[in-house]
Amino acid sequence: MIKAKAYAAQDKNSPLSAWEFERREPGPQDVVVDILYCGVCHSDLHQVRDEWGGSLYPMVPGHEIIGKVIRIGSSVTRFKPGDTAAVGVMVDSCRTCPSCQKKMEQYCEEGMTGTYNGYERDGKTLTQGGYASVIVTDERWVYHVSDKLDPAAAAPLLCAGITTYSPLRFAGVKKGTRVGVIGLGGLGHMGVKFAVSFGAEVTLISTSPSKQKDAERLGAHRFLLSTDNEAMQQHRAYFDVLLDCISANHDYDKYLSLLGLEGKMMVVGLPAEKPSLSPFTLISNRRTLTGSMIGGTAETQEMLDYCAEHNIVSDVEVIPVQQINTAYERMLKNDVRYRFVLDMKTL
Amino acid sequence: MIKAKAYAAQDKNSPLSAWEFERREPGPQDVVVDILYCGVCHSDLHQVRDEWGGSLYPMVPGHEIIGKVIRIGSSVTRFKPGDTAAVGVMVDSCRTCPSCQKKMEQYCEEGMTGTYNGYERDGKTLTQGGYASVIVTDERWVYHVSDKLDPAAAAPLLCAGITTYSPLRFAGVKKGTRVGVIGLGGLGHMGVKFAVSFGAEVTLISTSPSKQKDAERLGAHRFLLSTDNEAMQQHRAYFDVLLDCISANHDYDKYLSLLGLEGKMMVVGLPAEKPSLSPFTLISNRRTLTGSMIGGTAETQEMLDYCAEHNIVSDVEVIPVQQINTAYERMLKNDVRYRFVLDMKTL
Repeated sequence: MIKAKAYAAQDKNSPLSAWEFERREPGPQDVVVDILYCGVCHSDLHQVRDEWGGSLYPMVPGHEIIGKVIRIGSSVTRFKPGDTAAVGVMVDSCRTCPSCQKKMEQYCEEGMTGTYNGYERDGKTLTQGGYASVIVTDERWVYHVSDKLDPAAAAPLLCAGITTYSPLRFAGVKKGTRVGVIGLGGLGHMGVKFAVSFGAEVTLISTSPSKQKDAERLGAHRFLLSTDNEAMQQHRAYFDVLLDCISANHDYDKYLSLLGLEGKMMVVGLPAEKPSLSPFTLISNRRTLTGSMIGGTAETQEMLDYCAEHNIVSDVEVIPVQQINTAYERMLKNDVRYRFVLDMKTL
Repeated sequence: MIKAKAYAAQDKNSPLSAWEFERREPGPQDVVVDILYCGVCHSDLHQVRDEWGGSLYPMVPGHEIIGKVIRIGSSVTRFKPGDTAAVGVMVDSCRTCPSCQKKMEQYCEEGMTGTYNGYERDGKTLTQGGYASVIVTDERWVYHVSDKLDPAAAAPLLCAGITTYSPLRFAGVKKGTRVGVIGLGGLGHMGVKFAVSFGAEVTLISTSPSKQKDAERLGAHRFLLSTDNEAMQQHRAYFDVLLDCISANHDYDKYLSLLGLEGKMMVVGLPAEKPSLSPFTLISNRRTLTGSMIGGTAETQEMLDYCAEHNIVSDVEVIPVQQINTAYERMLKNDVRYRFVLDMKTL
């Protein structure tokens, strides 16, 4: 077994604190990664506090993991010690269903195995995430990361990056597509960067006028204040694609009506309350609403390679792991531009 | 001017009654159709009773119109007197926007002109529908109907037919596609017929066990009782395409969860209350919800030609126009299999 140091939640009411546990002895297909950085995703907070229900403790959160390969199993072919490598939101799946065969394991018919707050396929061993010193993962769920990229800033690509890259690709965003990114946070800021890099005309849509300057700095061409009814009315039927990154409760109609003929709203934000929408808004312009969840192993590697080629990373604030509880409080106040990343060498 | 006899609503509270009015003198592009049959759509009732708001009176409802061409304008090229011809849900549009250029005039950026309960492009002349003896329509919005088809049974193709044909085509339904048609009424029974004719494996999904036998008679291969929780659970992620024909209030999640990977739910039913849905259901399996409204002029003609080739018509109950008010009451009790059609020669 491999000893691991970590920060963990022991229950839903306590702050995260230092904890030690053991990873499995690597099997033939496993890669052992010494973790350098781990991004802090809003879903970490939801799960630590059991806000989605069913949380499993002790819980080491974290699924935006970057480090160095330090050991490989006997059958591993894609990695060697010394490689920069990453682990994302999932670490296993059934491997045999049609979704898995297409390397879209996030839609595994039996359910993917989450990097933390889940069980291994044995149904009893808890998975533990990246707020830790080391992780042992089957090579199928380990990715190469170019050394051209700053590893701390690349960490959030594993969740915030792929979560926005995949739906923009699925929606066919290309040169000239009119894209609206709704909400500027961890997801939205990556959505803007990707849509701009694909050649789209990108508008940041936000309730907050203070986001305009940042949106422009990130490359957005236009800004639409969603509380300005006149401006919203002027953008009725304007967009080809919307990327909905809002995790607060909201009405879908207000945004769907911004879509033109056969426009698509891609949903990645997960509000707690069910949004409502009018079928009249959908049938006008034959509008489409599609949900999207991270990306499969093939597309995640494609995205990381794309980022290396186009020099795309997240805007991050690197902090020592001891500041994680403060970081959660700041996240709740949207006081982060745009992702905290834990420096795991501070463990 | 051309004198027309009709049945009309004079206000939202009175029953329909006999009325006479004048149609415009046909212009160079107009076709004059002597109306033989007009289908009775649920939206007629909604508009007669002003249930969607903004109704305009006097109102001659009806947008499933079949008759014989009796006169043509000097520039008309596609029709000649004696032709069997049809008029559907719209009679004009801006003709210049991108949607109109694609002959998808139902999504006209300036709004299409409805066959009734609307204004002509002059913004002041009321349009009047097919519960009438005659109609004068620009040839772009007039369709050929093969004499192979029973004209009474073909009338509902102009709304119920195209409303279900278009989304099934847009969703790419073909041989082997697993299609679920939700709700067996005027729309649903056409959805079953089209999906079967496209080679799909078709399941009728209904709250009513009494619909099973009829569904099979219409060609459906399978029946799913939506109040049977166990059966619904067994069909989780089963379907490729769902056609939602429910006009009663309902929750989208219950049906969306029946969709497999990249499954599509096509919405054509228009409940009065906004349905709600969970983004978690959408992001699972990358599911899509798309609205669809009738079809454009090109696709409507394509559908009518397809019906002639495959001998597809509606199941209808032909009634004299004097029974329209009783027919509305029976429609409210779902007491029709599956469409009333008015015999306009009874006027």
